[in-house]
Amino acid sequence: MAELGERKVIEIIFSILGESPNAFPGLGDDVAGWRLWDDLIAILKRDMLVASTDVPPGMTYYQAARKALVMNVSDLAAKGVRPLAALTSLGLPGDLGEGGLRELIRGLRDASREYGFSLIGGDTNECPDLVIACSLFGLSREGELVLRSGARPGDILATTGGFGLTYLGLKALLEGLELGGGVRKEALRAVLMPKARLEVGVALARSGVLTSSIDSSDGLAWSLHELSRASGVGFLVEDLPLAQGVLEEATRLGLDPFEVCFYGGEEYELVMTVEPARWEEAVEVAQEAGVELRKIGRAVEEPGVWFKGPDGHLRPVEARGWEHFRARGRHHGRSSLPP
Amino acid sequence: MAELGERKVIEIIFSILGESPNAFPGLGDDVAGWRLWDDLIAILKRDMLVASTDVPPGMTYYQAARKALVMNVSDLAAKGVRPLAALTSLGLPGDLGEGGLRELIRGLRDASREYGFSLIGGDTNECPDLVIACSLFGLSREGELVLRSGARPGDILATTGGFGLTYLGLKALLEGLELGGGVRKEALRAVLMPKARLEVGVALARSGVLTSSIDSSDGLAWSLHELSRASGVGFLVEDLPLAQGVLEEATRLGLDPFEVCFYGGEEYELVMTVEPARWEEAVEVAQEAGVELRKIGRAVEEPGVWFKGPDGHLRPVEARGWEHFRARGRHHGRSSLPP
Repeated sequence: MAELGERKVIEIIFSILGESPNAFPGLGDDVAGWRLWDDLIAILKRDMLVASTDVPPGMTYYQAARKALVMNVSDLAAKGVRPLAALTSLGLPGDLGEGGLRELIRGLRDASREYGFSLIGGDTNECPDLVIACSLFGLSREGELVLRSGARPGDILATTGGFGLTYLGLKALLEGLELGGGVRKEALRAVLMPKARLEVGVALARSGVLTSSIDSSDGLAWSLHELSRASGVGFLVEDLPLAQGVLEEATRLGLDPFEVCFYGGEEYELVMTVEPARWEEAVEVAQEAGVELRKIGRAVEEPGVWFKGPDGHLRPVEARGWEHFRARGRHHGRSSLPP
Repeated sequence: MAELGERKVIEIIFSILGESPNAFPGLGDDVAGWRLWDDLIAILKRDMLVASTDVPPGMTYYQAARKALVMNVSDLAAKGVRPLAALTSLGLPGDLGEGGLRELIRGLRDASREYGFSLIGGDTNECPDLVIACSLFGLSREGELVLRSGARPGDILATTGGFGLTYLGLKALLEGLELGGGVRKEALRAVLMPKARLEVGVALARSGVLTSSIDSSDGLAWSLHELSRASGVGFLVEDLPLAQGVLEEATRLGLDPFEVCFYGGEEYELVMTVEPARWEEAVEVAQEAGVELRKIGRAVEEPGVWFKGPDGHLRPVEARGWEHFRARGRHHGRSSLPP
């Protein structure tokens, strides 16, 4: 398959399957949907956590199980869809033991409570690697579902928060990077106990202010390129959206803040575009949901993604994900492909 | 996990999760469901085909992909639910090649057309073993959904067809058993191109004549024990429901027809109970859907499953699945467990 290439695999699948008239959004967005009646849409999402590529050292069974659900909830959040029910398939390693199993189930339970949905079924198997595969179900309406493809030149580019904490946290867990006390706690929390931006995603979608949206689970750079490709626009990032304390820590450690910001991953902020005329409204809606929207740039006509530094110099943002997991096969083996 | 035991794993999961009031049917039936509004229920099903345990030698990529969907459709058929949409996650081995990929996608497409649903999304990954994981979505109504738990003593036990062809076919493919020309073609077709009993399952559920139902994918014996356990009844099988030609072939080969009938697997007939007063109606409804219902016995008060031979002798039917795949880890590693 490596020989065929990812693009060719997609082409083959599309060419044979075609698109169903009932499918909405079409193949290639963050979630799949099927038109029920009137403007009602059944939303389905499935993604899988595999311990060897998605669970860094230091993450507990509780945290891994929680993360398996959070990463799926985050995709629904980006579309403005509230999850209602979930199925989970568990592949359990032989050495998990009763304590590990209990921890894991508590992680699933707590994540479902945190985001207000029900665990309604699933199955368990023995498996050499811990695998937690989730299917989420929700409902949306055609006018409310936020796609990847609606950004237009001139739209304001915004995020629900800052980036870089997971870059630092993963480097600490995987490579033993020593973080300063101030950032260390936040960086580890960002990796081990990530949060999906569900409430603000749903509120913004309902208000109709968004023209496109995606989550940043594969890194900010990757998300921007996906939005760019789906919408046929480019992005000019004018403010490096680093989380608090990250710039100082990156500088102290001799890391490039640009790299830390764009090529992180396992982050679950929303990356969105907003009609300029409705920006103030978007800020208010987000504020009511407890989130400060961050304006980081704008959509432009020319496809591609650039960062414009304080000196006015344009630096291209490459379409790549976080490097450490890449070597372990995750981010470049993974793709949202049909069918 | 083997140490903990399957039963203990279930207990732990149940004790931590509890049951959601919105879940219907509850944990442990063939499909999961979530109450939407009025009596409407969103039905979700997910199951996974893994080549090393579910694909016998001689099965093509086309057939494997088709089977991955058929085995999920069969569970919906047993509940009387029509699938509307599906997601498929593909784990593709490196040596699949373009020809194999095309075959596989055509198998998915043809199965979705055969059973009238849309493939609306999914993803692909590289994987050492071919894996085809499917999620199906459908809708049902509380009064129409046929559970495992509704059988009552006195109910008529019925199936949508005869058993034993897959037992012979799998023995031919896995062990090189030489089958006679008459049965050989049918036995291989039963294994390689199985059919789900969707139309008759939906028709019978709508007519309201069924008190319980399950499919026979884990073998007739296993299905009867599951219905028995869920309904709190026993079953007396009075007619060995062998498919045409199977008795003669089993006798010729020196195989025990009882074994061939009860401990097959990878069969997708429906095993159901019918109110005696509505038996004629059930037969008619099935006939209109092109299926001859087969009365094979009845539900009794005492839990357990027995076969009553022509000589009146009672032989207990053990709760076990098909032996060949069992050794390869499938049927005893697999269970419909929460969450």
